[in-house]
Amino acid sequence: MQDFKTFLSTFIPQLEHLGMALFKACIILIVGYYLSRFLSSKIRKVVAKKDEILSRFISQAVFILCLVVMIVAALGTIGVQTNSIIAVLGTAGVAIALGLKDSLSSVASGIVLIILRPFKKGDLIEVSGLVGSVEAINLFTTNLRLNDGKVAIIPNSNMATANIINTTFNEQRRIELVIGVGYESDIESVKNIIIEVLRNTPEVDPSQQHFIGLTELGASSLNFTLRFWVKLEYGILNTQSKVLESIKIALDKNGIEIPYNKLDVNITQKA
Amino acid sequence: MQDFKTFLSTFIPQLEHLGMALFKACIILIVGYYLSRFLSSKIRKVVAKKDEILSRFISQAVFILCLVVMIVAALGTIGVQTNSIIAVLGTAGVAIALGLKDSLSSVASGIVLIILRPFKKGDLIEVSGLVGSVEAINLFTTNLRLNDGKVAIIPNSNMATANIINTTFNEQRRIELVIGVGYESDIESVKNIIIEVLRNTPEVDPSQQHFIGLTELGASSLNFTLRFWVKLEYGILNTQSKVLESIKIALDKNGIEIPYNKLDVNITQKA
Amino acid sequence: MQDFKTFLSTFIPQLEHLGMALFKACIILIVGYYLSRFLSSKIRKVVAKKDEILSRFISQAVFILCLVVMIVAALGTIGVQTNSIIAVLGTAGVAIALGLKDSLSSVASGIVLIILRPFKKGDLIEVSGLVGSVEAINLFTTNLRLNDGKVAIIPNSNMATANIINTTFNEQRRIELVIGVGYESDIESVKNIIIEVLRNTPEVDPSQQHFIGLTELGASSLNFTLRFWVKLEYGILNTQSKVLESIKIALDKNGIEIPYNKLDVNITQKA
Amino acid sequence: MQDFKTFLSTFIPQLEHLGMALFKACIILIVGYYLSRFLSSKIRKVVAKKDEILSRFISQAVFILCLVVMIVAALGTIGVQTNSIIAVLGTAGVAIALGLKDSLSSVASGIVLIILRPFKKGDLIEVSGLVGSVEAINLFTTNLRLNDGKVAIIPNSNMATANIINTTFNEQRRIELVIGVGYESDIESVKNIIIEVLRNTPEVDPSQQHFIGLTELGASSLNFTLRFWVKLEYGILNTQSKVLESIKIALDKNGIEIPYNKLDVNITQKA
Amino acid sequence: MQDFKTFLSTFIPQLEHLGMALFKACIILIVGYYLSRFLSSKIRKVVAKKDEILSRFISQAVFILCLVVMIVAALGTIGVQTNSIIAVLGTAGVAIALGLKDSLSSVASGIVLIILRPFKKGDLIEVSGLVGSVEAINLFTTNLRLNDGKVAIIPNSNMATANIINTTFNEQRRIELVIGVGYESDIESVKNIIIEVLRNTPEVDPSQQHFIGLTELGASSLNFTLRFWVKLEYGILNTQSKVLESIKIALDKNGIEIPYNKLDVNITQKA
Amino acid sequence: MQDFKTFLSTFIPQLEHLGMALFKACIILIVGYYLSRFLSSKIRKVVAKKDEILSRFISQAVFILCLVVMIVAALGTIGVQTNSIIAVLGTAGVAIALGLKDSLSSVASGIVLIILRPFKKGDLIEVSGLVGSVEAINLFTTNLRLNDGKVAIIPNSNMATANIINTTFNEQRRIELVIGVGYESDIESVKNIIIEVLRNTPEVDPSQQHFIGLTELGASSLNFTLRFWVKLEYGILNTQSKVLESIKIALDKNGIEIPYNKLDVNITQKA
Amino acid sequence: MQDFKTFLSTFIPQLEHLGMALFKACIILIVGYYLSRFLSSKIRKVVAKKDEILSRFISQAVFILCLVVMIVAALGTIGVQTNSIIAVLGTAGVAIALGLKDSLSSVASGIVLIILRPFKKGDLIEVSGLVGSVEAINLFTTNLRLNDGKVAIIPNSNMATANIINTTFNEQRRIELVIGVGYESDIESVKNIIIEVLRNTPEVDPSQQHFIGLTELGASSLNFTLRFWVKLEYGILNTQSKVLESIKIALDKNGIEIPYNKLDVNITQKA
Repeated sequence: MQDFKTFLSTFIPQLEHLGMALFKACIILIVGYYLSRFLSSKIRKVVAKKDEILSRFISQAVFILCLVVMIVAALGTIGVQTNSIIAVLGTAGVAIALGLKDSLSSVASGIVLIILRPFKKGDLIEVSGLVGSVEAINLFTTNLRLNDGKVAIIPNSNMATANIINTTFNEQRRIELVIGVGYESDIESVKNIIIEVLRNTPEVDPSQQHFIGLTELGASSLNFTLRFWVKLEYGILNTQSKVLESIKIALDKNGIEIPYNKLDVNITQKA
Repeated sequence: MQDFKTFLSTFIPQLEHLGMALFKACIILIVGYYLSRFLSSKIRKVVAKKDEILSRFISQAVFILCLVVMIVAALGTIGVQTNSIIAVLGTAGVAIALGLKDSLSSVASGIVLIILRPFKKGDLIEVSGLVGSVEAINLFTTNLRLNDGKVAIIPNSNMATANIINTTFNEQRRIELVIGVGYESDIESVKNIIIEVLRNTPEVDPSQQHFIGLTELGASSLNFTLRFWVKLEYGILNTQSKVLESIKIALDKNGIEIPYNKLDVNITQKA
Repeated sequence: MQDFKTFLSTFIPQLEHLGMALFKACIILIVGYYLSRFLSSKIRKVVAKKDEILSRFISQAVFILCLVVMIVAALGTIGVQTNSIIAVLGTAGVAIALGLKDSLSSVASGIVLIILRPFKKGDLIEVSGLVGSVEAINLFTTNLRLNDGKVAIIPNSNMATANIINTTFNEQRRIELVIGVGYESDIESVKNIIIEVLRNTPEVDPSQQHFIGLTELGASSLNFTLRFWVKLEYGILNTQSKVLESIKIALDKNGIEIPYNKLDVNITQKA
Repeated sequence: MQDFKTFLSTFIPQLEHLGMALFKACIILIVGYYLSRFLSSKIRKVVAKKDEILSRFISQAVFILCLVVMIVAALGTIGVQTNSIIAVLGTAGVAIALGLKDSLSSVASGIVLIILRPFKKGDLIEVSGLVGSVEAINLFTTNLRLNDGKVAIIPNSNMATANIINTTFNEQRRIELVIGVGYESDIESVKNIIIEVLRNTPEVDPSQQHFIGLTELGASSLNFTLRFWVKLEYGILNTQSKVLESIKIALDKNGIEIPYNKLDVNITQKA
Repeated sequence: MQDFKTFLSTFIPQLEHLGMALFKACIILIVGYYLSRFLSSKIRKVVAKKDEILSRFISQAVFILCLVVMIVAALGTIGVQTNSIIAVLGTAGVAIALGLKDSLSSVASGIVLIILRPFKKGDLIEVSGLVGSVEAINLFTTNLRLNDGKVAIIPNSNMATANIINTTFNEQRRIELVIGVGYESDIESVKNIIIEVLRNTPEVDPSQQHFIGLTELGASSLNFTLRFWVKLEYGILNTQSKVLESIKIALDKNGIEIPYNKLDVNITQKA
Repeated sequence: MQDFKTFLSTFIPQLEHLGMALFKACIILIVGYYLSRFLSSKIRKVVAKKDEILSRFISQAVFILCLVVMIVAALGTIGVQTNSIIAVLGTAGVAIALGLKDSLSSVASGIVLIILRPFKKGDLIEVSGLVGSVEAINLFTTNLRLNDGKVAIIPNSNMATANIINTTFNEQRRIELVIGVGYESDIESVKNIIIEVLRNTPEVDPSQQHFIGLTELGASSLNFTLRFWVKLEYGILNTQSKVLESIKIALDKNGIEIPYNKLDVNITQKA
Repeated sequence: MQDFKTFLSTFIPQLEHLGMALFKACIILIVGYYLSRFLSSKIRKVVAKKDEILSRFISQAVFILCLVVMIVAALGTIGVQTNSIIAVLGTAGVAIALGLKDSLSSVASGIVLIILRPFKKGDLIEVSGLVGSVEAINLFTTNLRLNDGKVAIIPNSNMATANIINTTFNEQRRIELVIGVGYESDIESVKNIIIEVLRNTPEVDPSQQHFIGLTELGASSLNFTLRFWVKLEYGILNTQSKVLESIKIALDKNGIEIPYNKLDVNITQKA
């Protein structure tokens, strides 16, 4: 009887210890619950400024995650070995991180794009072979309105690793044309005719230096390369087309041949 | 004898300790079992909203995983060194995560696609060279009905990293045609004929600015580029074909040559 | 002497402790051995449903792994510092996981394919440039019987990341043909002749809308594009060939030229 | 003096503890040494079945690794802080695993290939643009004897991720030929002539359905596509060549033109 | 009563311990808060030298991170099991690191570029097919002004892994031209004419050795390769064009043919 | 005073403890230093067999690494919290491993190449488009002497992942030639002429079966494919050239046309 | 009062403990500071031998890192829970390592290049399509002076994974030329003429075996392949050009045709 009493008495400190632990665990759970709600609502407000739907999803995920952390902390406090739970949590986290890698990368890139602003809404940019004006910069994607009216949705992770060409940064653009004339044409007079055309086209910027020179002895024609600068406001294609039409007319007027493909044929008549 | 008694008596606290530990372990196992069942049935219900078969598979996996975690926690509680088990569990988890990376990535991307909706069922999109209307957005794949009636099944991980072109966002589309006429044709009259055709085609949107201009001195022809806007409702290919037919007829009527390939030949007669 | 006795007596609790530890270790080993056998035979039965040879291999691997874990746990229990063993185990596990990544990925993808069934045995699919009917979906590979009778063995990891085109999902297929006629031909009559041919071909689905229109002013011919729908049961190539033969005969009957390549030559006679 | 004695006496339990620890460490080292030898010789025997040279190398590596683990465990037992050693061991292990990734991947894939047998020695397979018969499946590489007699050594990691086409699985092969005839030829008689040729060629499998139909209005010829099945035993190229020769002779006999490239030329004589 | 008092008295050391812990936690929090502010403002100043907007963002992130670390340390000090929080923190950190990988890589590369200076503002460089002068080297991107006036924004991570060709390092450039002359031309005299042209062009550097030699028996012409060096200050394209024009004129003057494509034709007259 | 003495006396066990720890640390440092020297000189000798310079570098690195580990172990023994040092060590190790990944991969692959010997010094191999004889297999690179005398230095990591074609394994090589003859030629006599040539060429292996058959109805010629086997000792190109020359002469002698490109032209004379 | 005194007295050992801890922490900080300075100045001196700017940067980074480690160790010693700080440090380290991966890889490869010397300053090498002489081997990049005078800056990570062709290792180079002659030419006499040319060119190495043989029945010409060896000192292009000129002259002298493209035309005269 005495032994049993002694036996029982050995449990008393253990029970006291357990009681204390349960008390601590309860406090952790209660404080944790309110903290989780506070945190998730805080995050929701911040994200909602950029994206309403996403904010609801993220705040829920944060809430669940906080609860799990609190429960594990409480379990550990009442003496359960939580190493295995933490290992599984960690591995699951790594798995989710690997799965979400592309999405996380897009969001991170989106934040970088929004902060750094290498282009802004309305800019005409070229990226991965797509040319269009920026319609929206979202957290996950950047939307481009292509020239033919379609809309391209580009993940921000692609935007962050691609070479972007911004065509709105500069007010002027250089146009390069190749003009082929017959081999019999006089080089100097061809150059003079073309320079004359450039001088008479108001859209061509006279303050910038033109270049006109023979750059290739082609298979059927002498090929001249022509470079000149145009202000964006006049329209690139308009001006290029106008200059080309004027050159065609001027070459015709001066009797300079724009040759078709040419072939020298040696004929042997059989039979 | 006394020594043996003393010897035995030293085991009593150990046994008490072991008993307490076994008691704790039992509680962990029982509570753990019901928790696992609860969790797995909860997850099953959530996933089953999107995918019935998958939900059964996932809930089973979660159940087994929870049981393993509980058993390891119980083993640890009764004093077995569980470090090696946890290390193996962790490594196995990393291996499984590496193996499932593509699948997890697809599911994560699927969830992102469902939440963000960069396109919806029925939209006509272009992605990785495939053009078709979206038939279904599943957790793992997005199904496209291609124009020729085949169905493309695209993993969501591909969807998330690809540049998607959504052709349903905009009600208008720009069409670009290149028309080649003979070198003898008058530039202005060609432009007028084509503009007249556009004016007389009701499907062409008159509110948007056309472009028509000489853009290339081709090998056998003067090449004009023509750009105009069409409303999606009239059909893109229909309108393009109608405009092209009208231009062909108008050029013929005005005696403007649409040239074949041309060649200048210098002949030397042998023999 | 007394000192020596006291000295020895200090070892007694240590020996007791060691004895207890050895006892625990033995129990761990014995229970562990039977658990390992149970687990490995269980896994063997589950895997054997899909793959007999693989199941034997995997059950062996699981058995050895369980034994190793048990031995390390037992060693830890008798007081050997097992940190270094666990570190090596973990690192070896990571190395094996890295090495098996592709294989694991294939198995994981195989399980996903078997569960989700984006295609089933007998379906005619296109994947990574290979076209064939699915012959088997295994844990590691998917086998395709190609059209020319060869068998393609595709790792499931490739299947999981590739865009798959399933041509069996839809009972109808659209065929597109391009017909080139001489520049002198009348556009309307060409269109009428072709429409007539389509009407008189029973395999062409009359309920779906055809398209026939001029789509290109080609180098030597006016190119019309023709689109019509065929039911899979009639055979795609059969119907396409039949329509093409009928068009050839109809164009001949109506005296409409199907032109060879054309060239305008300006000849200068030398010598 | 008394103080000094007391001072010394405080070291006695420490020395006892150290003695005990040294004793344990010795046992660990001795047992570890024999275990290492046993393990390494065991592994050597298993690997030697597949590869003699490799087995010697691997058994040495395992032996050294086991020794290192034993020494670290022994050091830890005598009270040296082994955390830093374990950290360095672990990092070195990760570095080696990263370095050996490709090799490990090849070995793992080799084991998978040997277990799963998607092809066996002697099979004629196509992989990554190489066509040849399998000469050996080793742990690291698969050897192919190419058709021209060279030997391709393909890492198993490539084999495991490549789409393999096994041409030995099926006893029949489909041959596809395109035959171009003059535009004046009668479509039905061409088809009859070719079908007649197939009927008279014994190597062509009559039980499988042929296909012969007009499939292209070519630039200079009507192109017919011909498909028929041949048994592997007759030789693919032999039969194809024999059929082609018969068709050439039959077309000649029936006066059906096999045309050269054709060109319509409009000549303008200058000068 | 006595028992209760004893019972209570066992809590006193626990309370003392808790009080001490709370006191420590408060100190950690207070010191931590001021340290966080100090650190974040310090980092802001350093980063602000390169990028104003970025510095604000980074200093905020550092501040929040420091606070979280302090709070976790404080929680641990008052006896909450923080393993699970740390595991979640670590996993979140890995996930964020994976997501930010591209951005971090760009910043790291940017710092390397700024320190090493393989090119400086104003240099004309070629990278990934883009040619332009360096406009700015930022932390994330390098901006190139392309030759046609557009601005390319290249992520520094691309800059760090690309082969960069710096065309400003060297004051001289070698130009290579291929000149085709008729098969009847005398090899030596062609070489002499071209060398004469080079001698009479002042922009060509006479101190560097030219190369002129027959390098191809072309389909229609003997092709000579010409190599000479020009100083950057004269302009590359200018000089090349000037040399080419002079060679064209000199060949004409010496009656050396620059041939069109040549064809030998055997004619059989049908009908 | 008494209090102070008591106060001091509390430090005595701490000092004893510290003394003992310092003593242990010294032993660790001294033993560690000699062990490091022994290890580094041992490794140097092993590596020096393959590479002298590398061995000096590696032995130094091993020496420094061992010292660092020893110092950290000693610090831990005297009571400094070394967790942070170990964390930094580990992270630095991971960073270095990531940086050295390619180099480690090359060394690992080099060891595998040296052990497995898929090719040996002097073998003529094809790898990644490079063809040459193996000059050296080093730890980092494999050197190939290309056919034109240049030396290719290929990282072993590339060698380990590339498909290698070893052309020295087989003593015979198959040569494939395509011979085009005029459409009027008799098929059987062409085949007989070519077979006769093969019979009269002693370098062609008569024991292996030739193949000669019509394989293409070409645009201008009937194309025959010819396959025969040659022993390596006679030289591949020599034999191929000899057979081709004999066929050219034999066809000429038998009056069989080797046609130029052929064209059917319909001429319309304009003006 | 007595209770309070007892209460206070319980704090005394705690204070003593704290004092001792603070004392230890101070020593760690002081020793750590001087050690950090020593280490950073040591590393600076070593790195400065290769790169001055880099050494300053690296020594600063090492200094800060050491300080952080010391501070964390000191904090841990005074009883702050540093697990969370270490976790954050570790994660930050992993993030930085991921970001710096490319840079670290370049430095590691640079060190390997400097140690192994597969090429040295001045060697003419080909790498990733760039051909030039090595100008500098830095820690991050290798600089090539291209043939046209531009300078290519190649990251060492690219150098380490690329196949490098070193053209300076061998004093001789093989040149391969293809010579096309008319179909009527005598094969033997063509071969004799070309061999004669080689014999009369002193730059051609007579000790190495030439090859000259018919290797293709071309569309318009018999194509002979010619291979011969030249010493580097004579210049590759010079010798090749000289041999080609001599062959052209010798063929002309012997009346052997170098044909233009040839075409057989069957003409049908329309109208």
